[in-house]
Amino acid sequence: MHRYRSHTCGELRASDVGTDVRLSGWLHNRRDLGGILFIDLRDHYGITQLVARPGTAGAEVLDKLSKETVVRIDGKVVSRGAENVNADLPTGEVEIEVGEVEVLGAAGPLPFTINAEDGVNEERRLEYRFLDLRRERMHRNIMLRSAVISAMRHKMTALGFNEMATPILAATSPEGARDFVVPSRLNPGKFYALPQAPQQFKQLLMISGFDRYFQIAPCFRDEDARADRSPGEFYQLDIEMSFVEQEDVFQPVEKLMTELFEEFGGGRHVTSPFPRIPFRESMLKYGNDKPDLRAKLELVDITDVFEGSEFKAFAGKHVRALPVPDVAGQSRKFFDGLGEYAVEHGAKGLAWIRVGEDGTFAGPIAKFLTEENTKVLTERLGLAAGHAVFFGAGEYDEVSKIMGAVRVEAAKRAGHFEEGVFRFCWIVDFPMYEKDEETGKIDFSHNPFSMPQGGLGALETQDPLDVLGWQYDIVCNGIELSSGAIRNHEPDIMFKAFEVAGYDRETVEREFSGMLKAFRLGAPPHGGIAPGVDRIVMLLADEPNIRETIAFPLNGNAQDLMMGAPSELEESRLRELNIQLRKPVAAKGAEK
Amino acid sequence: MHRYRSHTCGELRASDVGTDVRLSGWLHNRRDLGGILFIDLRDHYGITQLVARPGTAGAEVLDKLSKETVVRIDGKVVSRGAENVNADLPTGEVEIEVGEVEVLGAAGPLPFTINAEDGVNEERRLEYRFLDLRRERMHRNIMLRSAVISAMRHKMTALGFNEMATPILAATSPEGARDFVVPSRLNPGKFYALPQAPQQFKQLLMISGFDRYFQIAPCFRDEDARADRSPGEFYQLDIEMSFVEQEDVFQPVEKLMTELFEEFGGGRHVTSPFPRIPFRESMLKYGNDKPDLRAKLELVDITDVFEGSEFKAFAGKHVRALPVPDVAGQSRKFFDGLGEYAVEHGAKGLAWIRVGEDGTFAGPIAKFLTEENTKVLTERLGLAAGHAVFFGAGEYDEVSKIMGAVRVEAAKRAGHFEEGVFRFCWIVDFPMYEKDEETGKIDFSHNPFSMPQGGLGALETQDPLDVLGWQYDIVCNGIELSSGAIRNHEPDIMFKAFEVAGYDRETVEREFSGMLKAFRLGAPPHGGIAPGVDRIVMLLADEPNIRETIAFPLNGNAQDLMMGAPSELEESRLRELNIQLRKPVAAKGAEK
Repeated sequence: MHRYRSHTCGELRASDVGTDVRLSGWLHNRRDLGGILFIDLRDHYGITQLVARPGTAGAEVLDKLSKETVVRIDGKVVSRGAENVNADLPTGEVEIEVGEVEVLGAAGPLPFTINAEDGVNEERRLEYRFLDLRRERMHRNIMLRSAVISAMRHKMTALGFNEMATPILAATSPEGARDFVVPSRLNPGKFYALPQAPQQFKQLLMISGFDRYFQIAPCFRDEDARADRSPGEFYQLDIEMSFVEQEDVFQPVEKLMTELFEEFGGGRHVTSPFPRIPFRESMLKYGNDKPDLRAKLELVDITDVFEGSEFKAFAGKHVRALPVPDVAGQSRKFFDGLGEYAVEHGAKGLAWIRVGEDGTFAGPIAKFLTEENTKVLTERLGLAAGHAVFFGAGEYDEVSKIMGAVRVEAAKRAGHFEEGVFRFCWIVDFPMYEKDEETGKIDFSHNPFSMPQGGLGALETQDPLDVLGWQYDIVCNGIELSSGAIRNHEPDIMFKAFEVAGYDRETVEREFSGMLKAFRLGAPPHGGIAPGVDRIVMLLADEPNIRETIAFPLNGNAQDLMMGAPSELEESRLRELNIQLRKPVAAKGAEK
Repeated sequence: MHRYRSHTCGELRASDVGTDVRLSGWLHNRRDLGGILFIDLRDHYGITQLVARPGTAGAEVLDKLSKETVVRIDGKVVSRGAENVNADLPTGEVEIEVGEVEVLGAAGPLPFTINAEDGVNEERRLEYRFLDLRRERMHRNIMLRSAVISAMRHKMTALGFNEMATPILAATSPEGARDFVVPSRLNPGKFYALPQAPQQFKQLLMISGFDRYFQIAPCFRDEDARADRSPGEFYQLDIEMSFVEQEDVFQPVEKLMTELFEEFGGGRHVTSPFPRIPFRESMLKYGNDKPDLRAKLELVDITDVFEGSEFKAFAGKHVRALPVPDVAGQSRKFFDGLGEYAVEHGAKGLAWIRVGEDGTFAGPIAKFLTEENTKVLTERLGLAAGHAVFFGAGEYDEVSKIMGAVRVEAAKRAGHFEEGVFRFCWIVDFPMYEKDEETGKIDFSHNPFSMPQGGLGALETQDPLDVLGWQYDIVCNGIELSSGAIRNHEPDIMFKAFEVAGYDRETVEREFSGMLKAFRLGAPPHGGIAPGVDRIVMLLADEPNIRETIAFPLNGNAQDLMMGAPSELEESRLRELNIQLRKPVAAKGAEK
């Protein structure tokens, strides 16, 4: 028999009754019923109940051991009897009559319980992460993460992509955030940067002639922690393809996401194909560019209706309406509650009306609406008895933000929110440029390296604010999983695109010399995307905090309290790296 | 039709003749035969021949384009005719009559040729790696690497292992080499270390209750470059298992390696099961602990034969013999050549004899051997007519090293070397301790964290120099792919093991507090291994330099000349990180 086990703790069934077995695992739980010990023995695969009769050598040993001790036990599989079957456990029909017991790993007093959720705080959990990970929920989350990433790789390979690793000791790149840097011992005074994303390398792989690349890529940003972003490092499913247009990128990603979320989403359905929603339409209908399409309500721009209106609150402002059907049964509290919600999100108040059985409007602002207003709104918003309409008026951006939030909340409260589904969409047609309201200057609105729709011609002939980019986002249930783009791989179009935004040729040559060199030696059209792995796992695990889906995350202060990172370096190591510490600068205005 | 291609350049066959197609790719090669242009169009998938007739618009465009320009072409598939079939190309039965041509990516003058190997140096290749990777050999190597790693993952998953990522921003750990470090902005004066290996994390995963872990793990060592080690980062197939003994680790790894090398080894056969060779036996028979078993010769210790001998060159020394059969046909040059080889490897000379038809010895040292010597050697070494014997005498270590090298070289030169196979073995039973010859002090010989064979009892009762560890290496064709061990997970045995090597309990508690804390809260017996991915790919690709199997390696000075890493940091960034540069210390004795 194997030194440690003949079976795992998740394996034995009624058909094994009578077999002599050996199991190893953790003492998960122990109950003493009139001298008979009932013990749950736990391993990675499951839980098996042990029974130790009074007076046996096994009972004597087991009686003294603390929870979480690791033991090997020999015993015989017996039936629990119909009345004692535990239907919650796959092994619930049997138990093991314990013979010999061996302690393999002793356990001292535990800082928190493993076999039940207690209110232990996150810092403590992270300090003893090796215990925290034994808990059922964390064990399930980490295994889900492993299975999801493994399936991603299988599916990407099946879709004709090849995984390739790109350097982690890399050059600093012009991404948005701060780099983590690594001093070079062999090159004094110089530093590597950990990649914020392998963006340039994946483009170079396309220029190198590899056709369809992917990587579960570690990425690093020296940013402060957020619920949906782990401080320090995170993973993205980095994808790049050659000889493609936007739809060629959408197809495999849509197939991948559909399969992945159907397989690991716990029965939550994926509605595909994913709608393609132009950026401007999304801003108007949903108030933002990451719409939660589970909310079955849409905003309507009615600015024109009140253009010359007497109603001061709306006149000359940007006005957005949110029609909500089936609110006849809602009390005043529903309307007031949404008003409070709007105020919490920055509104001064929330105007509304409700439509009576006879089609007339009632509610706080009904009296300010003319007969013509009522007629137009009824028609434009498709109003009928039992509808309500909420209004936002003010600056475009502000109204979008507030009414976008109200849309989702109203849907939830009024029963127009679809639960148990994954609603994906593509946001497309992002504008290449935007105008700074204060300076009037034209600048890139999103990614300067995307190919403009219409290419050089569009840049030369169109109003810059009308030029759209081959640029897109993928969104699921209101969460942006990734941006992506068809890249601008032609130096002439790149120079022109930057010229429109006020950058001269010399600056572009200097700042992007590496990529320009590559673009000039035979670059194929290419594009890609990079969905965030951590966010995907969060969605699938239904966890609100990203750290619950990572085995060993840093805490909010970017520390690993279990292993003691970061830590001080010896002076000799600093010397070897040609650096020295500097006293932190006192905050401005601080006393000396 | 798709914007860029209806088919790839590796796809068209005789059955496609007559089809209108669209291809995109790089202009690989161009020949002008009496005005007719023959062009090889290359993409990731293959090469297709294009034909452009004089006077056509396509010919006019193609005639002016440089090699490596990226084009889209429309055309019709035609048969090449039986006499013009290119059997070397899967597309060799057809060619494309070119219609329309569009330039997708222009190419300027190239720093070196792509469609043929020229003598360009490695620095230049790395500076233009995106071109170098287009060359057939590099493209094949990188695709092999991708396929091998993908297969590793599939196979490991099928073997019941789960891949899990461990932190890259980690704590410094007591491995052998220098860490790369990352200053923490949020924790002034402190540094993360990039992992030299995820050793502690994988052990913590076992203590967390995950049963079978693996990871294609990026590892980082701040060491100088070597042919078989990339400076900076490298990858290992990191493996750890709970509730296992040594053979439980061997089984899946042996299955994995056998399948992987059979599948990707280009027809080179894998001989399995892999022999288990005790460390001491390996040192005696092969002169080292990474034997190349393709060499079908073995060393024999004959120290005792010459113990009281008159022959000064051997008497009182450690003497090792290498019997080589079937050398009757070898000239004096064979013997002299091996002697020179031995001298190059540090020997003063190489004694030898050859066995004549009548069983008598001839050769330089034959006259020093007594009749008794001859008799004993003939018997012990199984000598017969046509055999030669080479001798090494001196210190044990020196003789092992020299005769180990001579063994392989003699096998190659005398036809006892098996080509076209992968000969794996496990080296087992490493001693836990060794004695420092000068100080007489006992210290760990390999890994202090391995479980000693016999556990606490062995440490308490045996001579430390006799205690073996559950520690092993996997070797293929003379290359060590990995060390591994069953870990010492019991604090009591760990304290005792360190005590034997002269470390007191307090030191051990202080230095390894993190792991000890975990070992005290229920740790299972566990062990693992971590075969080097880069070395495996080198072996499979049959490349002598590791950089030929990595897409974007650093050069020998740990620089990326293409992307400009490492580079200087702005003063503001240094301030933010609370560090400053230090002038490199002048070398000792240098002029001021």
